[in-house]
Amino acid sequence: MFYVDKRLQFPVRVETPNPVFARALQQAIGGVEGEIRVAMQYFFQACGARGNPKYRDLLMNTAAEELGHIEMLATAVALNLEGAPLSLQEEAAADPVAGAVMGGINLKNLLSAGLSAMPVDSDGVPFDMSHIYASGNIAADMGANVTAESTGRILATRLYNMTNDPGMKEMLAFLIARDTMHQNQWLAALEELGGHETVYPIPNSFPQSEENQDFSYAFLGFQRDGSEPVQGRWSEGASIDGNGTFTSRPMEPMGEEPNLGPARENSGAQAEQL
Amino acid sequence: MFYVDKRLQFPVRVETPNPVFARALQQAIGGVEGEIRVAMQYFFQACGARGNPKYRDLLMNTAAEELGHIEMLATAVALNLEGAPLSLQEEAAADPVAGAVMGGINLKNLLSAGLSAMPVDSDGVPFDMSHIYASGNIAADMGANVTAESTGRILATRLYNMTNDPGMKEMLAFLIARDTMHQNQWLAALEELGGHETVYPIPNSFPQSEENQDFSYAFLGFQRDGSEPVQGRWSEGASIDGNGTFTSRPMEPMGEEPNLGPARENSGAQAEQL
Amino acid sequence: MFYVDKRLQFPVRVETPNPVFARALQQAIGGVEGEIRVAMQYFFQACGARGNPKYRDLLMNTAAEELGHIEMLATAVALNLEGAPLSLQEEAAADPVAGAVMGGINLKNLLSAGLSAMPVDSDGVPFDMSHIYASGNIAADMGANVTAESTGRILATRLYNMTNDPGMKEMLAFLIARDTMHQNQWLAALEELGGHETVYPIPNSFPQSEENQDFSYAFLGFQRDGSEPVQGRWSEGASIDGNGTFTSRPMEPMGEEPNLGPARENSGAQAEQL
Amino acid sequence: MFYVDKRLQFPVRVETPNPVFARALQQAIGGVEGEIRVAMQYFFQACGARGNPKYRDLLMNTAAEELGHIEMLATAVALNLEGAPLSLQEEAAADPVAGAVMGGINLKNLLSAGLSAMPVDSDGVPFDMSHIYASGNIAADMGANVTAESTGRILATRLYNMTNDPGMKEMLAFLIARDTMHQNQWLAALEELGGHETVYPIPNSFPQSEENQDFSYAFLGFQRDGSEPVQGRWSEGASIDGNGTFTSRPMEPMGEEPNLGPARENSGAQAEQL
Amino acid sequence: MFYVDKRLQFPVRVETPNPVFARALQQAIGGVEGEIRVAMQYFFQACGARGNPKYRDLLMNTAAEELGHIEMLATAVALNLEGAPLSLQEEAAADPVAGAVMGGINLKNLLSAGLSAMPVDSDGVPFDMSHIYASGNIAADMGANVTAESTGRILATRLYNMTNDPGMKEMLAFLIARDTMHQNQWLAALEELGGHETVYPIPNSFPQSEENQDFSYAFLGFQRDGSEPVQGRWSEGASIDGNGTFTSRPMEPMGEEPNLGPARENSGAQAEQL
Amino acid sequence: MFYVDKRLQFPVRVETPNPVFARALQQAIGGVEGEIRVAMQYFFQACGARGNPKYRDLLMNTAAEELGHIEMLATAVALNLEGAPLSLQEEAAADPVAGAVMGGINLKNLLSAGLSAMPVDSDGVPFDMSHIYASGNIAADMGANVTAESTGRILATRLYNMTNDPGMKEMLAFLIARDTMHQNQWLAALEELGGHETVYPIPNSFPQSEENQDFSYAFLGFQRDGSEPVQGRWSEGASIDGNGTFTSRPMEPMGEEPNLGPARENSGAQAEQL
Repeated sequence: MFYVDKRLQFPVRVETPNPVFARALQQAIGGVEGEIRVAMQYFFQACGARGNPKYRDLLMNTAAEELGHIEMLATAVALNLEGAPLSLQEEAAADPVAGAVMGGINLKNLLSAGLSAMPVDSDGVPFDMSHIYASGNIAADMGANVTAESTGRILATRLYNMTNDPGMKEMLAFLIARDTMHQNQWLAALEELGGHETVYPIPNSFPQSEENQDFSYAFLGFQRDGSEPVQGRWSEGASIDGNGTFTSRPMEPMGEEPNLGPARENSGAQAEQL
Repeated sequence: MFYVDKRLQFPVRVETPNPVFARALQQAIGGVEGEIRVAMQYFFQACGARGNPKYRDLLMNTAAEELGHIEMLATAVALNLEGAPLSLQEEAAADPVAGAVMGGINLKNLLSAGLSAMPVDSDGVPFDMSHIYASGNIAADMGANVTAESTGRILATRLYNMTNDPGMKEMLAFLIARDTMHQNQWLAALEELGGHETVYPIPNSFPQSEENQDFSYAFLGFQRDGSEPVQGRWSEGASIDGNGTFTSRPMEPMGEEPNLGPARENSGAQAEQL
Repeated sequence: MFYVDKRLQFPVRVETPNPVFARALQQAIGGVEGEIRVAMQYFFQACGARGNPKYRDLLMNTAAEELGHIEMLATAVALNLEGAPLSLQEEAAADPVAGAVMGGINLKNLLSAGLSAMPVDSDGVPFDMSHIYASGNIAADMGANVTAESTGRILATRLYNMTNDPGMKEMLAFLIARDTMHQNQWLAALEELGGHETVYPIPNSFPQSEENQDFSYAFLGFQRDGSEPVQGRWSEGASIDGNGTFTSRPMEPMGEEPNLGPARENSGAQAEQL
Repeated sequence: MFYVDKRLQFPVRVETPNPVFARALQQAIGGVEGEIRVAMQYFFQACGARGNPKYRDLLMNTAAEELGHIEMLATAVALNLEGAPLSLQEEAAADPVAGAVMGGINLKNLLSAGLSAMPVDSDGVPFDMSHIYASGNIAADMGANVTAESTGRILATRLYNMTNDPGMKEMLAFLIARDTMHQNQWLAALEELGGHETVYPIPNSFPQSEENQDFSYAFLGFQRDGSEPVQGRWSEGASIDGNGTFTSRPMEPMGEEPNLGPARENSGAQAEQL
Repeated sequence: MFYVDKRLQFPVRVETPNPVFARALQQAIGGVEGEIRVAMQYFFQACGARGNPKYRDLLMNTAAEELGHIEMLATAVALNLEGAPLSLQEEAAADPVAGAVMGGINLKNLLSAGLSAMPVDSDGVPFDMSHIYASGNIAADMGANVTAESTGRILATRLYNMTNDPGMKEMLAFLIARDTMHQNQWLAALEELGGHETVYPIPNSFPQSEENQDFSYAFLGFQRDGSEPVQGRWSEGASIDGNGTFTSRPMEPMGEEPNLGPARENSGAQAEQL
Repeated sequence: MFYVDKRLQFPVRVETPNPVFARALQQAIGGVEGEIRVAMQYFFQACGARGNPKYRDLLMNTAAEELGHIEMLATAVALNLEGAPLSLQEEAAADPVAGAVMGGINLKNLLSAGLSAMPVDSDGVPFDMSHIYASGNIAADMGANVTAESTGRILATRLYNMTNDPGMKEMLAFLIARDTMHQNQWLAALEELGGHETVYPIPNSFPQSEENQDFSYAFLGFQRDGSEPVQGRWSEGASIDGNGTFTSRPMEPMGEEPNLGPARENSGAQAEQL
């Protein structure tokens, strides 16, 4: 279960409110690379963690941290929206960034939320919980978490580059550092699970003898002209999982032309299809 | 640009049509772990690939392969739906799996698609293109692709375990093998980009000196009782990116209690908030 | 503006309540082929109709009719849900169709709506107003309406084939007839707009001299082997719009390999891409 | 910021795992009446609370409680899924509830989550954060919260009625009690804000002199036959907000037939509309 | 069933078209606080109303009114879009509000709808029918309607404050008045259902003796430091429903640490989890 | 299965990058009128085509072409985003179109995709695969395709009118021509299926004797005042399908006032409803 402390994890201050930057920050709250996503992803992964209970702890702790990050960002959005124009007439005068206009802010932050943050992305699209990946496979989950933190850190650096506000840069420098740690943390968990040669292919509990092993380590080319596909680490040498050797070749069809036959009576098809 | 061959990449045959299994296969088409997702993800990553053009080729080729996998699965769904009951009266007689009923199939496959596949998951939820991750950062994209293929292979093994149909097992054994290769292929691309110590933290183009380095390699605990967080590879030793040393400690708030002050006039707040 | 009459457009009665059929009927309410879609589509087309005001009238009247169809179907859903099991224990006894189980009904009709209809499809997916097509072009709108009524009638016939309940068959026979009329009605509007040779290509207000006329009537093949594409009415003879002559040929690339160059500084790309 | 305790708020135990009931419980996690909704709603309302800071505290505390409720329910889902069939062949034997079949469970719980909970509703539809209402008006927010807890308690009682499992009944009896408190709690906040005559109409900061007061307390009828609308507390006596007196009458149009005129050149309309 | 009158409920005129205001008005059509929501919510509540039929009438009449409000707003959007720039070149000249640019309008109103309204919110996000709350419980529905009208009136006052156009202010002053009435109307229905002490806790048909009454009127604190939670009307005195007495205390966990045990064979987990 | 050629179908060049136009082009990628929609629609229609296999070929070939169109447009978006401001400070200087500001571009193209295209519309709303219409009825599918190409061509002409960039006009002139052909192509397929009198009403396999023929060709009016509905081709003469004669009349209710009776015990209704 969860408890709260009234204080923020890290100070949030805005020297010059900028409602266009508030719109950009919304991506870090409700975008697919944002903090709602990681908070809820770690939380649901924890709730479904089977096997060694240490991963449940690891995940639930970081979920708690990410909830605090949403809180920081939501505060930052509200502070940046102070001073946003409330009428189309005052906009030229009131707007702190020359050239930024009413149209440049996310109108829902004003119309729906009264100058506060919302669980939406920078275009006002609500976050959708289908982005919570919790597979029941601890290695796949850790990999998904590295990915989430990678795109999260990319986003945070883009936001950092977008603003000159010292308070905002300070907050983002903290969040970027946490993303550095979290990338490393989930990679460390994968290492603890045995590293590449133990972990992959995920799931490692499925016997590879049952897969069609002629195609397990073959890089296939689909160039129309039948040319050899582009070469690289993926086309020769030992496979990364250590269980095979990479080869490469152009691919030709092995199946037939599919034919579903005529449609059934009463299935709503056109008479010509029966 | 794209070309087609009328034949399938691999043979698809169904010995005993099973409409409940058709529903399960829909997850591999339109689920977040499914083939539409990887086909479109590699395609959009390719379209936005900047830098070394070999990655564009690599991605676009695999996108072409995944389009062929959707085609295979869509054929398998249609074949499994042959024999599905078209009326509530015939269900008991017509259903090939004892106990599977009209309610157990995805009704939209019948009502909307006339016994064919749809771009939806096993619960009939349409695939939503927000799941296409193409970050503009080649390393983040490759990591996202390992993740996609990991959950994809997990799904394929679950489907494999669910059916006894020889044709379906054969098709899935092929798809599982391709997922093995694709996991390895994207890991190989990450290795070619320099491996863990070069690649991470993503993006590696952001100067770490600008992040708040006190928090870059610290595993923070958020246990209510202030106890030390769970220990592991993530709490001591060199960080995975080679740029720091892991530490761990319980976290205390560093910020203040946030206070947004009174609401503005004309912002739609209640009078008591002004 | 709108007014109501308390009575239904056509009688709705259910002899034998069937909660699985209630689930199927939901597709006709909140599916993409359903009545919410047409009601709202005609309504928004009417609200945006420019030019001859008779089309506004035509559309708004039919919107009113479709609202009444939602009402009829929602009543039918509620009546079919009477008798649905409210507990997992009573299901075997209470279910009027042998073999249909709690799992076969749409649980939200029970859990969220208390045995009533919802604006969702047969899988419980909410209707999404992006399916309302109102293009600002009256001919495109009429075409979209023919399409909507075509899929609507297909759905209604599939539902008709699925039930033996005399009341339900009677209601559906009425709705199928209305779909027949509505298909004809929108086709008649297209005829009044001048028929194929005047209407197409939509929009007919764009000067065809500005399109790349080398490709306006050429059926292009994308077979990998460069073979001639499949022949038919689309590959020879006068075009349907009367403005050209169909030809056909295999297609070859006319563009170059796209190259976006290196990524920009500060854009969050990996260092290797700069 | 947030902290965690490893223990659950209330014990969760399942005597007889029932995967169909797991599906039903999903509605209490990811349904629009569910716990994700209230947790995130109170959290975002707290983050945007302006004026008296006590409401921020009130909201944030209850958000913390609701996070713990998600955790309880997610545990209950996972425990109910133990024993779910993993193959279509074992279903008849393995299913603990006679008659419940593979088709009756939510396949994504198995295929995507490996027998764990997901942030989706009982039909597998992901929760969408547009359901988080945080208006920036404290009274509107409190009213929305009463509503959320009302539908939440309805759902919980329906789930309670659906199961005979003693552990599940015990857990739900606790959650129902909390919903009782939370309904009362938000009603108490509305009372503290002054009760009906101070709070309404929301927002009370807008001067009623600027609204069209001829229509502020008139119950209007839209019966096609022009008959008097249905009478009740809403049609006579003092208005609930104490600022007017209810009247009632049939409504007639006061506006004209709208006419948008011809379409503009280059707007993509059909030539006939210009 | 429904009928139409060609005229609008109230006159709609726009003196100075303003395409940015058109974008804002879209929130009142397709936002979650908008008119589609209330029209469809009252309609579906009416269709599912069981018990005293007067509520069906009350709801259906108001649904008819709200349909007319969508029509008014859609007309207002179209009128405000007249004069919007159709090319990126003419924008500076053609834009009636200095500083408002092509980027500030909702591009889909132009690209998809040809200068007409759409069923989307001010950010172009389509309305999603999951926002239609119809619970089958008449009191919960009435409460949801008060909430909907509260956020609706907040939105309308924000729009009123945003514009100086006399025609738009007149239309909004009418809509605000109707929202005043509708708030009062649904509150009146709750009063007719017996007021707070009869209505709550919703549903009042569930015997409170079956809930865990130790927690029915206790305000629980989740402060990390175990401090007493914030005091108010919710922490002492009679409960609002009249059935208990408020108390308050910090909350401690009553459950155990959840442990799901090892993963099952064939469930797609990693070998280390089995 | 699919193959790729590295080159584009048609040259894509941008003389003056314009990030606001990039936003507009996104509608042609991920809008409901866009290329993802047609590519995936033709693909799924092909996969489910029963009856004469020539339609499968026809559809699959055009699907391949549309994939190439997405590629062209994605390239155009990326090229237009070159030069977009990466910080709020540089915007005034860097923006190639006077007056276009950071706020006028789609922030996700920058924050999520690093200056590349995304599968979203011009407002950043992700494409949703529920827009793929594949009905299992070949005539309905062809009609849906005419509709898709009609709205597609309208969109392309609006984009053409919006830009002065010679490269972009050239690309769009090509795409407009292809839309001309594709409209004609699907109309030609309908002609080959027999033309209006054979094709309609769709599905033509349902015996019209079973529909309620009193209403199959009657244009019904729903004017509140009972006046005759608007006359046109739809109100007299032979029906378009050749199977009847149009008539018209005002509509009166034929059903009763629906009455669902009291709510069931344990269904979560309010006590007053039982």
